[in-house]
Amino acid sequence: MKPTLILDPLFRRMETTFSAVDQARIHAAARVVWGRNEPMPDEALEAVRDEVEIITCGYWKYGDVSRFPKLRAILEIGGAFPAPEDLDYGACFTRGIRVLSCAPAFTAAVAEMGLGLALACTRQIAWTDRAFRHGMPNWSHTEFATELGTPFTLYGKRVGMIGFGGLARALKPLLAPFGCEFQAYDPWLTEAFLKGQGVTPVDLSTLLATSRVIFVLATPSASNQALLDRGKLSLIRPDAALILLSRAHVVDFDALTELLLAGRFVAGIDVFPEEPLAQDHPIRKAEHAVLSSHRAGANAEAIFNIGHVTADDVEALCSRRAPFAMQAAQPEYIRLRADRQGAG
Amino acid sequence: MKPTLILDPLFRRMETTFSAVDQARIHAAARVVWGRNEPMPDEALEAVRDEVEIITCGYWKYGDVSRFPKLRAILEIGGAFPAPEDLDYGACFTRGIRVLSCAPAFTAAVAEMGLGLALACTRQIAWTDRAFRHGMPNWSHTEFATELGTPFTLYGKRVGMIGFGGLARALKPLLAPFGCEFQAYDPWLTEAFLKGQGVTPVDLSTLLATSRVIFVLATPSASNQALLDRGKLSLIRPDAALILLSRAHVVDFDALTELLLAGRFVAGIDVFPEEPLAQDHPIRKAEHAVLSSHRAGANAEAIFNIGHVTADDVEALCSRRAPFAMQAAQPEYIRLRADRQGAG
Amino acid sequence: MKPTLILDPLFRRMETTFSAVDQARIHAAARVVWGRNEPMPDEALEAVRDEVEIITCGYWKYGDVSRFPKLRAILEIGGAFPAPEDLDYGACFTRGIRVLSCAPAFTAAVAEMGLGLALACTRQIAWTDRAFRHGMPNWSHTEFATELGTPFTLYGKRVGMIGFGGLARALKPLLAPFGCEFQAYDPWLTEAFLKGQGVTPVDLSTLLATSRVIFVLATPSASNQALLDRGKLSLIRPDAALILLSRAHVVDFDALTELLLAGRFVAGIDVFPEEPLAQDHPIRKAEHAVLSSHRAGANAEAIFNIGHVTADDVEALCSRRAPFAMQAAQPEYIRLRADRQGAG
Amino acid sequence: MKPTLILDPLFRRMETTFSAVDQARIHAAARVVWGRNEPMPDEALEAVRDEVEIITCGYWKYGDVSRFPKLRAILEIGGAFPAPEDLDYGACFTRGIRVLSCAPAFTAAVAEMGLGLALACTRQIAWTDRAFRHGMPNWSHTEFATELGTPFTLYGKRVGMIGFGGLARALKPLLAPFGCEFQAYDPWLTEAFLKGQGVTPVDLSTLLATSRVIFVLATPSASNQALLDRGKLSLIRPDAALILLSRAHVVDFDALTELLLAGRFVAGIDVFPEEPLAQDHPIRKAEHAVLSSHRAGANAEAIFNIGHVTADDVEALCSRRAPFAMQAAQPEYIRLRADRQGAG
Repeated sequence: MKPTLILDPLFRRMETTFSAVDQARIHAAARVVWGRNEPMPDEALEAVRDEVEIITCGYWKYGDVSRFPKLRAILEIGGAFPAPEDLDYGACFTRGIRVLSCAPAFTAAVAEMGLGLALACTRQIAWTDRAFRHGMPNWSHTEFATELGTPFTLYGKRVGMIGFGGLARALKPLLAPFGCEFQAYDPWLTEAFLKGQGVTPVDLSTLLATSRVIFVLATPSASNQALLDRGKLSLIRPDAALILLSRAHVVDFDALTELLLAGRFVAGIDVFPEEPLAQDHPIRKAEHAVLSSHRAGANAEAIFNIGHVTADDVEALCSRRAPFAMQAAQPEYIRLRADRQGAG
Repeated sequence: MKPTLILDPLFRRMETTFSAVDQARIHAAARVVWGRNEPMPDEALEAVRDEVEIITCGYWKYGDVSRFPKLRAILEIGGAFPAPEDLDYGACFTRGIRVLSCAPAFTAAVAEMGLGLALACTRQIAWTDRAFRHGMPNWSHTEFATELGTPFTLYGKRVGMIGFGGLARALKPLLAPFGCEFQAYDPWLTEAFLKGQGVTPVDLSTLLATSRVIFVLATPSASNQALLDRGKLSLIRPDAALILLSRAHVVDFDALTELLLAGRFVAGIDVFPEEPLAQDHPIRKAEHAVLSSHRAGANAEAIFNIGHVTADDVEALCSRRAPFAMQAAQPEYIRLRADRQGAG
Repeated sequence: MKPTLILDPLFRRMETTFSAVDQARIHAAARVVWGRNEPMPDEALEAVRDEVEIITCGYWKYGDVSRFPKLRAILEIGGAFPAPEDLDYGACFTRGIRVLSCAPAFTAAVAEMGLGLALACTRQIAWTDRAFRHGMPNWSHTEFATELGTPFTLYGKRVGMIGFGGLARALKPLLAPFGCEFQAYDPWLTEAFLKGQGVTPVDLSTLLATSRVIFVLATPSASNQALLDRGKLSLIRPDAALILLSRAHVVDFDALTELLLAGRFVAGIDVFPEEPLAQDHPIRKAEHAVLSSHRAGANAEAIFNIGHVTADDVEALCSRRAPFAMQAAQPEYIRLRADRQGAG
Repeated sequence: MKPTLILDPLFRRMETTFSAVDQARIHAAARVVWGRNEPMPDEALEAVRDEVEIITCGYWKYGDVSRFPKLRAILEIGGAFPAPEDLDYGACFTRGIRVLSCAPAFTAAVAEMGLGLALACTRQIAWTDRAFRHGMPNWSHTEFATELGTPFTLYGKRVGMIGFGGLARALKPLLAPFGCEFQAYDPWLTEAFLKGQGVTPVDLSTLLATSRVIFVLATPSASNQALLDRGKLSLIRPDAALILLSRAHVVDFDALTELLLAGRFVAGIDVFPEEPLAQDHPIRKAEHAVLSSHRAGANAEAIFNIGHVTADDVEALCSRRAPFAMQAAQPEYIRLRADRQGAG
C-alpha cells in the first residue's frame, strides 16, 4: 500500500509549482491527500492524521508533530526551514522525522543572477545602457568610463564569498572558467571543509580588503545582523564590486547607501531592508549600483524546480531510500540558529 | 646577435599597450628599433630596412614586403589583419613571412561581455535597474515582468553561435557550467570540425528558429553583409535573446531596430552601423534591448593583453620557435576573404 | 572546556593512521583519552564513561550506547559501519548520536585502482609484461594479440557500474576525460538521483549485456550475494572487461573462474572469496585475468587518510559544526541492510 | 569539378585504415586516384601528375614536388613527417603546399597507455599479477610490498613531462582528475607557452630530481639522443616512476637497464632500442619494470583513426577551408630538426 502524503502547497500554487510530470510522479509514489491551492480544512487533516507519513506544505501550520504518529518526513516548499518556534526539531530528530527544505530549488537561479549582477557591475553594462538612453553613451575611447571607475574582467580576479553554503557552491563553478581565486568567510564551516572545497578560509576583514568581487551569500541569523557594518564596508577596495544576494539583513543598508552615493565602490543589490522599497529611498539615485528587485530566485523556472525536487524526494521516501534532492535539516545548524537567535 | 625588430605602435600607445614587464621581455629578445608613440620617420625605417626581421605595427603602412629582404614576421597590434589591398599576402606566404594578428588579445574580454549581455537580457537586469530608477521596480511577484517577456535562465538552454572562430571558442567554456546545448553556423568551417568542438552544425535558419540565445560572432566579410536580413531575423523565437557582438555589418540594422521596438524578441547590442550612433537613432528607445557602446573588447586589461601576446610571440620568433599566442594568417581564409570581397 | 574523546584505534595503529599534524589537530580540539595501540582497559573506559562525547575506534566493542550519557558521535576507523548486531542504531538515531565511518578515506585509492585494473585489462598491460618475460612479447604487428582478444581504449566506450555509491562517484571523474558513456545499476538509489549524477539507470541484465567495461562496486549485503551468478555473468560481451573491486561476495566466483579460463571475457580482480587465496585455486592460471591481491585501498596513503578525515570531523564536532569528511550512517540504509540480512 | 587526390596507402592497408564511412567521405569530396593496397605504378601516377592537388600516402616516394604543378597538400598516413632528405620542405613552404601528418591519430591511444603504464607501476599492478601466478601474492598487509618499493597513488603528485607536444597535451587531461602538479622540460617551446598550458617550465635536472612520475614524451631528434644519460637517470628519486613512451632513442638504454636491475626506481617501458628486443636482453629480468612491446599507439582503433583525420582534412582542403585534424609541418620545427640533425 502506498504511503499517505499530505500535499498542502499554500502559499504556493499547484499549477505553478508542480509540472504535470511531477504531479504524476508524486501520485505514482504516494496516496496524495488534498493537493489543492486552498487552505486544507482541519477535518481533512484529521481524517488522515493517524496514517500520514509525509507532509508537503508551503509552511508548517500543523502544531505539534506528536499529532502524527506515523510521520516520517516534512517537506517544506516555501523556501526556508520552519522556525524552531513553529516546529519542534528536537522531537523530529528523536523520532527520525526528516525535515527537508526546497531551498536548493532556487540555488541555480540565484547563483546565475549573482554572476549576471557581477558582470553588470564590473563591465558597466547597466550604466552604459542607461547612459545610452540619456544620449551619453560610454564609447570605449571616451573619458566617460572614468566617472564610474574602470571596468574590469573577472579573469584571474580574487573573489570573496561571505557564506559558503549551497548558494556559494553553485556560484563557484560559474566563476571557475574565469580562473578566479576563491576565498571565503563562513563561521559555520571548518577550515578543513573550506579548503576541501577549493577556497581559502579568511577572516571577514581580509576578505573585504582583498577581494575584487565580494558576494554576500550568508543565510540571515541573529548573529549576522548588520555583520557588514560601516566599518567593515569601509574596508572594501575602491576598485571592487559588492554583490548583495542573500539578505539585506546582513548589511548596514544606510551605510551601504551612503558609500555607494559617494562612489566608494560599485555594487549589485538584489535584496533590500523593505520590499517594495520606499519610492524616495536614496539608493534609487546611486549611479554606482545595479538595482534588482529581489529577482534572483523567484522566476517561473525556479518555482517549477520546487516541484521537481519534491517529486524526487517523495519517490525516494516512498521507496524507503534516502532523500537526496532537498536540503535536510542538520541538528548542528538548527541548534546554532536557535542558540544565536536567543543570544541576538 | 639579437634579431632587429621594429616597434611602431601607432595608433596604439606604448604605455597603455606594453606593461613594463612585456617591454623588458621584448628588449631582452630583440634589438628594438623605434618603440615610440609618434609615427616612425622614413629615415629611421630606411636605416634598418635591410636587416629588420620582425615588424610590430599598429597597421601595415610600409608598402611592398620586398623592401625588407630579411623580414620573417609581421605582428599587427591594431586588432585586425591588414587588408589584402595593403599587404601582399601571396608574397608573405611564398617567403614564409608569418603574418600575426593580436586579435586573440581581445577574445576573452569580448566573450565575457557576451555572457554579461546575455544575462542582462535573459534575467532582465538592465531593464530592472532602469525601471527601479523610474520608480517602477520589477518585484518578483508583480505582473510587470510580462511586459518585457518572461525572464529565463541559461541552464540547459540551446545556444546558437553564428560564427565559430576564436571568439565562440572562448565563449563556449563560459557557458559550459550552465549545461547549454550548442549549435553553430559557420560556412568557413567543416561539419567534422564543428562536431569535434562539441557543437552541432546547423544551417542559419534552423539556428535562428531553435535557439534560446543567439550570439552573432562572425567576422565581417563581403559575403556576410546583412546576412541576418529581415526574413532571417523574423525566424527568431519570441522567447529568445539575440546578442550582437562581432559587427553590425552582419545584420540589417534597420530591420533589427523595428523588430526590437515591436517587442518581437530581446537583444543585447554592442556594435552599431555608425559609432557614435546618431542621437536620434530609434534604437535608443528600444525597451527590449540592452545597449552597449562597443565596450566588449576595448578595456584597459585587453589593451595590455596585446602587449602580452606580442611579447610571447617575439620571444618565440627570436629563439626560432613557432609563435603561439597571436593568430596566424591562414592562406585559406585570406583567399576566402579576398575572393568574397571581389564577389561582394 | 574541550569535549572528551576516546581514541582507541585497535586494530589500526596510531603511528600509521594519524600523522603528527592530524594528531595535533585532534588534541587541539578535544581532551583525548587513551590514544594507544593496545586495547583500552575497562577501567580507563569506566573513568570517562559519564563525560565522553566522542568515541573514535577501530570497531565498536563498548556494548550498549546507553552506558555513555553524553555520547554524541561514534567515529569508526576500521573501514565499515558497525554491524546492527553490535551497535544499536535505533538508539543512536533517537539520541542524535552521529555514527560516522572512515570508508571515504579509501575511496580515492580504490577508484584509482579500478581505472588501473581496467587499463591493465583493456590495453593488455599485465599480459604483455608477463609474455615479455616468457620471451613472447606481444609486438604491435604480430598476431599474438588475438589470442587475448583485441585491445581497446576507453575513449567513448560505454561503462557500466554495479553500485553507484561513493566509490562509483569517485571513479566517474577519473573516466570522464575519456568521454565514456555511463550506465548504472543500483537498487538502493532512485532513477532521479542517478540521472542527476549523469548516469543512465539500467537493469542489471542490460548493463551486463551492453557495457564494454563493467565495474563491480556494490557494497555487500545479504540481498546481493552472488548477484552476478552464472546466468548473469554469461550476458557479458566477449569484448568486455569486468573489474571486480568491492567484494567477491557479489559474484559466483566459481562461475567467474570457469568463464575466465574459457576466455569468455577479460577481468581485473582485486577481491577473492578467501584471502589469501588457496595456492591451487584455478584462477591463478587464468590468462585473461589481471589478479590483484586486495590492494585497491589498503596502502599507506589511504591509511593516513583515515587519520585525516577523522581529524576533520573531530574539529567539526568539537566546534558544534556538522561533520563532513566521514560517511554518516543513514537510517534508510541501515534499515535496508538489516531487513535484507534478516531476509537473506 | 572535384579536386584530384592520390590515395596510395602503402605500407598501410585500405581496409584497416579507412572505415567505409571515411572512404565514402573522401570519395564525396575528391576524385580519388588509385586507392589500393599495392604500390601505385608509375604510369598511374604520371597520368594525373599535372592535375593532382592532394597526395595521401604511407610515405613520400614521389621525388621532387616540382613534378606536381597543382599540388597543394601532402597528407602522410604513416605516422611521421617525411624526412627533410626525402621531401623538399622549402619548396613546399614557398608554394604553400601543406604538409600534414596523421600523427595526431595515435595521440589519444598513446596518452592512455601512458596513464595505464604509470598506474601499473605506481600501484604495482603488473608485479602483483605476476607474483600471484608464482604463488606469492602481494596481499595488502604482508611485507612483500617493500621489496618493490611502496605503492603510491597519483593524487596530488608532481608529474614531470619531458617534451610537451601533442602527446603531453593529450595526457595532461587524463591526469587532471588526480590533481597532479605539472612541470615540463621542452627546449622547443617558450616558457610563456608552457605557463599558458598550465605547466611549470623547469630544466631537465630539476624535473628528474623532483617528479614522482616522469613521462618521456619527446620526439626523437639528433639533439636529444641519449638525453637521459646515466648521470641524468641517476637524478631520479627512488620513489619515482619513469614512463618511457616516445622513443628509446632519448635514453641511454644500457644505463636504464642497469638502474632498473639495481632497483633504483620503477619504470614502464613501451619502446626499445631494437624491436623485437633480443631474447637475452637483461631488461627482461627487471622486476621493477613494466614491459610493453611498443603497444601504446598501434591498435586497431588508432589505425582507423588515421582514416578519420584524413577524411576530415580532405573535406576541408577540397572545400578550400583550412585543415584542422592532422598536424601541419611548421617551418620552425622542420628547420630545427634539420639544423640539429646536421649538427648531431
